[in-house]
Amino acid sequence: MPDRLGPPLVTPVFDRLALVGLGLIGSSLARVARSKHLARHIVAIDASETVRNRVTELGIADAVTGNVAEGVANADAVILCVPVGVCGVVAEAMRSGLKPGAIISDVGSVKGSIVAQVTPFVPDGVHFVPAHPVAGTEQSGPDAGFPTLFLNRWCILTPPEGQNAEAIAAIRAFWEGAGSMVEEMSPAHHDLVLAITSHLPHLIAYNIVGTAADLEAVTQSEVIKFSAGGFRDFTRIAASDPTMWRDVFLNNKDAVLEMLGRFTEDLSSLQRAIRYGDGEALFNHFTRTRAIRRSIIETGQDSAAPDFGRQPKANSDQ
Amino acid sequence: MPDRLGPPLVTPVFDRLALVGLGLIGSSLARVARSKHLARHIVAIDASETVRNRVTELGIADAVTGNVAEGVANADAVILCVPVGVCGVVAEAMRSGLKPGAIISDVGSVKGSIVAQVTPFVPDGVHFVPAHPVAGTEQSGPDAGFPTLFLNRWCILTPPEGQNAEAIAAIRAFWEGAGSMVEEMSPAHHDLVLAITSHLPHLIAYNIVGTAADLEAVTQSEVIKFSAGGFRDFTRIAASDPTMWRDVFLNNKDAVLEMLGRFTEDLSSLQRAIRYGDGEALFNHFTRTRAIRRSIIETGQDSAAPDFGRQPKANSDQ
Repeated sequence: MPDRLGPPLVTPVFDRLALVGLGLIGSSLARVARSKHLARHIVAIDASETVRNRVTELGIADAVTGNVAEGVANADAVILCVPVGVCGVVAEAMRSGLKPGAIISDVGSVKGSIVAQVTPFVPDGVHFVPAHPVAGTEQSGPDAGFPTLFLNRWCILTPPEGQNAEAIAAIRAFWEGAGSMVEEMSPAHHDLVLAITSHLPHLIAYNIVGTAADLEAVTQSEVIKFSAGGFRDFTRIAASDPTMWRDVFLNNKDAVLEMLGRFTEDLSSLQRAIRYGDGEALFNHFTRTRAIRRSIIETGQDSAAPDFGRQPKANSDQ
Repeated sequence: MPDRLGPPLVTPVFDRLALVGLGLIGSSLARVARSKHLARHIVAIDASETVRNRVTELGIADAVTGNVAEGVANADAVILCVPVGVCGVVAEAMRSGLKPGAIISDVGSVKGSIVAQVTPFVPDGVHFVPAHPVAGTEQSGPDAGFPTLFLNRWCILTPPEGQNAEAIAAIRAFWEGAGSMVEEMSPAHHDLVLAITSHLPHLIAYNIVGTAADLEAVTQSEVIKFSAGGFRDFTRIAASDPTMWRDVFLNNKDAVLEMLGRFTEDLSSLQRAIRYGDGEALFNHFTRTRAIRRSIIETGQDSAAPDFGRQPKANSDQ
């Protein structure tokens, strides 16, 4: 696996790229689009004046505006990088500014809901290619972005049947240019896969951190001091953006509830093994989960270093 | 916070130190005891011939034996670094070899059960100072150890009331020499605190990895590919040693079941908020969990780097 981006493209994928929402993902796209020459001209569109000023200071876009219809004018591609819950509103607002042949895409963690929200506002002759880069950190805002965020990560496209092949190819080339591997699937399957690999883990992490915060018999300071026993790992993803995650759960309800039901069933079974002292059941369960970790490391989706490499000296003798 | 161990002690804490069990923790103790000069002579005791041979090859102890009663002879301190479930058996086996005035300690993740198992076998004139270093990685065995494992981590002592003050002071000095901060509490309180900061997180991690492995509609290869959405974080602690963790759950049943009950209650409440589309409840919950992460970073118990620093370029522009 390469650990850095390759050389810039000779011919950019898009002449004019508009990014709506310059948070962690949008600002990372702006940075990699420029450093890899994926677009000749980058327009940053954000509703927040604070974000716009910061993007201007950072110098990561060629133009910055708060007016979405103006910002998308003449764009070859517009990528929505806003919370899932407002994609429909933004699609409606930008509708009048889109040029014929433009491509709309997005980066949302839920696909079924976004397809339902955005599709009614896609003008004839404009192509909608929904996308989801499975990448991120627990940080938010334009300062949190960096150009290698998507390197060696997967990006899932969920184009509607019969979508323009050139539009799909262009979005694929864009993500491959950003260092990603690309896969296509249906929105419904995407939402099921992500419910287990991303949404449920976040829900559980948010939940256990809340449980710990509410204890009466254990002080908050004890929870913090002794967090290296495992708890601290959960606090990282429980520090993710609350608006983004509220919208994910509201917009992927069925798949999340399905996975949550399975999780709770399995947890009841482990609970029962603990209550009745069934060491064999516990041992067998704890043994088979090791293989998945090994595959994740072998396929380059996580570091092989112990403790995520948090202890840089873990592999040396001093 | 210092990021490396200080200079070796001029006078070692113990003349002769016996370590029983040379896995991740025991072999890390052997390494730091030598590099910091915490003991003049280190005896490694392990029931496994494979481990003994490896310890000999690594050269991290002055003597290596499979006979626990012989190994502890003349030791000033004996530290049990074996799974919680066998501490009583080992204490019984070494009983005859202990010299008067010796100190027994341990590193177990559960304290109430270990006190109950070991105390009956502590000869008169021998001091038992139970200890638990809150440190570790997901790896196991003598090769996984490293001398800075305990640096800036807490070690909890749970000495019985009226225990010899010099014995407690010696164990404290030993852990401080290994780079740890030391706190004392009762075994019962320890077991409650660790149930939430360590045992429940491991149980949940083991559980979700099992749930993911059992899905029919999502393939194992999809779970692995798209694990960067959050799931991979859980696979790390779910790769921990199965024997160790089986014993933890069997020996801290009441506290784990209590914390699990609270966790499940809280999860039901989040589940209900998702089902009924209560975005405000979700948003409020997701907001208050951020503060705990901040405190963990401020107190040096985790890295401030995004994504645990797994992406070294996260803070640079290329």
